[in-house]
Amino acid sequence: MKRKLNKRKVAAAVKQRDTKQLELLMNNWQSPEIADFIYHLPPADKAFVFTILPYVMVTKTFKVLDISSQKEIIKNLPHEQAARILNEIQPDDRTQFLSELPGILVKDLLQLLSEDERIITLKQLGYPEHSVGRLMTPEYLAVHPDWTVQQVLDHIRANGKDKETINVIYVIDNEGHLLDDVRIREFLLVATDKKVEDLMDNKFNSLKVTDDEETAIEEFRKNNRVALPVIDEEGILIGIVTIDDVLRLAVDEETENIQKIGGVEALEEPYMKIPFLKLMKKRSGWLVVLFLGEMLTATAMGFFEGEIAKAVVLALFVPLIISSGGNSGSQASSLIIRAMALGEVTFRDWWNVMRREFLSGLFLGSVLGVIGFTRVTIWTLFSNIYGEHWLLVALVVGFSLVGVVLWGTLSGSMLPLILKKFGADPAVSSAPFVATLVDVTGLVIYFSIAFVIMHGTLL
Amino acid sequence: MKRKLNKRKVAAAVKQRDTKQLELLMNNWQSPEIADFIYHLPPADKAFVFTILPYVMVTKTFKVLDISSQKEIIKNLPHEQAARILNEIQPDDRTQFLSELPGILVKDLLQLLSEDERIITLKQLGYPEHSVGRLMTPEYLAVHPDWTVQQVLDHIRANGKDKETINVIYVIDNEGHLLDDVRIREFLLVATDKKVEDLMDNKFNSLKVTDDEETAIEEFRKNNRVALPVIDEEGILIGIVTIDDVLRLAVDEETENIQKIGGVEALEEPYMKIPFLKLMKKRSGWLVVLFLGEMLTATAMGFFEGEIAKAVVLALFVPLIISSGGNSGSQASSLIIRAMALGEVTFRDWWNVMRREFLSGLFLGSVLGVIGFTRVTIWTLFSNIYGEHWLLVALVVGFSLVGVVLWGTLSGSMLPLILKKFGADPAVSSAPFVATLVDVTGLVIYFSIAFVIMHGTLL
Repeated sequence: MKRKLNKRKVAAAVKQRDTKQLELLMNNWQSPEIADFIYHLPPADKAFVFTILPYVMVTKTFKVLDISSQKEIIKNLPHEQAARILNEIQPDDRTQFLSELPGILVKDLLQLLSEDERIITLKQLGYPEHSVGRLMTPEYLAVHPDWTVQQVLDHIRANGKDKETINVIYVIDNEGHLLDDVRIREFLLVATDKKVEDLMDNKFNSLKVTDDEETAIEEFRKNNRVALPVIDEEGILIGIVTIDDVLRLAVDEETENIQKIGGVEALEEPYMKIPFLKLMKKRSGWLVVLFLGEMLTATAMGFFEGEIAKAVVLALFVPLIISSGGNSGSQASSLIIRAMALGEVTFRDWWNVMRREFLSGLFLGSVLGVIGFTRVTIWTLFSNIYGEHWLLVALVVGFSLVGVVLWGTLSGSMLPLILKKFGADPAVSSAPFVATLVDVTGLVIYFSIAFVIMHGTLL
Repeated sequence: MKRKLNKRKVAAAVKQRDTKQLELLMNNWQSPEIADFIYHLPPADKAFVFTILPYVMVTKTFKVLDISSQKEIIKNLPHEQAARILNEIQPDDRTQFLSELPGILVKDLLQLLSEDERIITLKQLGYPEHSVGRLMTPEYLAVHPDWTVQQVLDHIRANGKDKETINVIYVIDNEGHLLDDVRIREFLLVATDKKVEDLMDNKFNSLKVTDDEETAIEEFRKNNRVALPVIDEEGILIGIVTIDDVLRLAVDEETENIQKIGGVEALEEPYMKIPFLKLMKKRSGWLVVLFLGEMLTATAMGFFEGEIAKAVVLALFVPLIISSGGNSGSQASSLIIRAMALGEVTFRDWWNVMRREFLSGLFLGSVLGVIGFTRVTIWTLFSNIYGEHWLLVALVVGFSLVGVVLWGTLSGSMLPLILKKFGADPAVSSAPFVATLVDVTGLVIYFSIAFVIMHGTLL
């Protein structure tokens, strides 16, 4: 409650540009709180808040802001203050920020950097987008095998200040080759006259500078580390990647996956902030593609127009039949996409998956088929809607459900595996995509079964 | 290549129970590698590998295994060795493991623990499932404000060995109230005669023992920390939660979300390992619910049977119309679900979301409507399939698409917000769920528009 009151006062102080009051009120705020608060302010107010933040909070807060807020602040700050922020933030955060901006703006902003920082940044921007090179920071601590623990601790005290993490210390040889990574705890738990080499086990996991972001996320998931070293082709240590940056990436990746599964291109901006026309562009693309695919259903239905005219009752079950295929397909595809993302299923398992899904499809199809059959039978007891051939209708509905659900599970499960095999992202085989694919074939299955069962009576 | 050859040799050694060879071959393997390898072995072989692992690797590897492998190992090991593992692993990992087992088995396994460990474990099992109390470990380091940095470092050296992390040191008063958390780097970067209180800023984030897992994940995302302290109602420090456990939870949560969006109950076991009948149970539940909902389409279509008999051409576009509603609904719901999960959208934004989705629906509906209208027009140039009233058909299709897509986006976006408001999980409003909902209303919209436009001619 008090917090809330406080927030209202802060908002008022921002509006009135009351620097003194604002400094007083925000005195004990931490960076996530400040970021949350700033998020909802108009651009000029955002920049104003940044001008009154204490030195140390500026870089901390800038780092946790979303990219559009970051842009607004840099654009709205006086040159000098923008320069201070850009020079002070960690190289990896800076590179991430600059990567998101249009080239012309980057050129301007690079002019604001000191020469040292500019060199680091230009080098990082030289690595491919979404590569580990863009993520890493050169701010790590390295020691040599022949040092004593005391020497290491002295080195940390002298040089650790502006390092991104000192939780892991890297051991290198004289040429800079990475030999080992040693957690700080190892140094703190032994006598200070021990040598670094006594603590080494020569086992370490590292990233290559050209690895992509997904590899980095994967490595962090497997190895319970707060930072991983980055080496070049010759094994020379050139930087580290810290877990906070990877966590942020993992959240973005999850968003992208969920949006893809829902049949939207990745938005890359918060839903409430993305400009309307951009949102429409991201959404209409897939929607039109799906619509064009779905138009085949009209074509397919056209082929069966004669049958429908003879037995209108068939048309009544079209939505039920095709949606059951679509639903079972969505289930199967989301299960397999996720299992692939977790490494539980790879292309080599396709046969096992297929067997499993064949049985699943038969089972689930039979369950729905029996319900469908029963539905038609029960309705017939109360009305004459399905006519004298109601039993044939019930049989067609029942068998079609088995066929369509079987087909749905098989397509839904195989499609992600096939996409992956051909280098595409399995998440593209989203629920709507699978549903569309299954709809057209579902109609063909339905009317074929109807033809076989009703031939000579209704058809 | 070499690695692969090695793996084949290891597999052979496991089959032959060749202890010596196996120890030699696995000598420099790390725990994630071992876990990966074990994952594919039958239960007895899994347990065998565990008997030959060096002491330190046993607990490290057990921790990163999936729950079903863990179970298989504990079940297949001799009592004595199972006891050793259970006593050695960190309390939080042990509690997580025991939480997943049936009560009767837990009782047996508790007997294997030493008294100290049993007390800790029973206490943790007393906290509600999925609460922070189950996640935390009592293995942290605490110091007092009047200590010098040298005293702290000595304390770490003497007591840090079996602590889960020493990256963060906690400052408590004499009653055990948490006063501050100080990162290890603060101690390492200052002169050793400084006092702890000189390093304190009295700002810290903490979890409550009764908080749920989602809160913990959220806090770790916001605060860039490797561990967070856990306090009771009186503010007394009773444990810490480390980031590795939270990361694992976050992956599980993501899996659950993706499965829900695909219309499956959360599996809780890897796809390839879950028993077939259990898999069917998880899948058939939702599928049957959706099917029962979708049966309303047959009822709705029944109402329009007369119209269809008069204008069979109407039936041809039924799949196209309803799937367009479903697809636009899936898009909207997955966007909103994700934005809610990230905290970008809350219930209070419902009006803004609705306005945005109303415009989106009109826009996207018009795009599809124009394509649909054009489709009918062009087909008419080449065939007579739509009859003399083709223009009416084209108009019905075009306007229905606008109506259905608008309805789809509105339902898809509002449903997650409404579910959340009533305390349900928004992810339940999955693509298949929204599609089913929209299908029935889509039919009503379609046939109503048809009735208005075609009244007096075809109908």
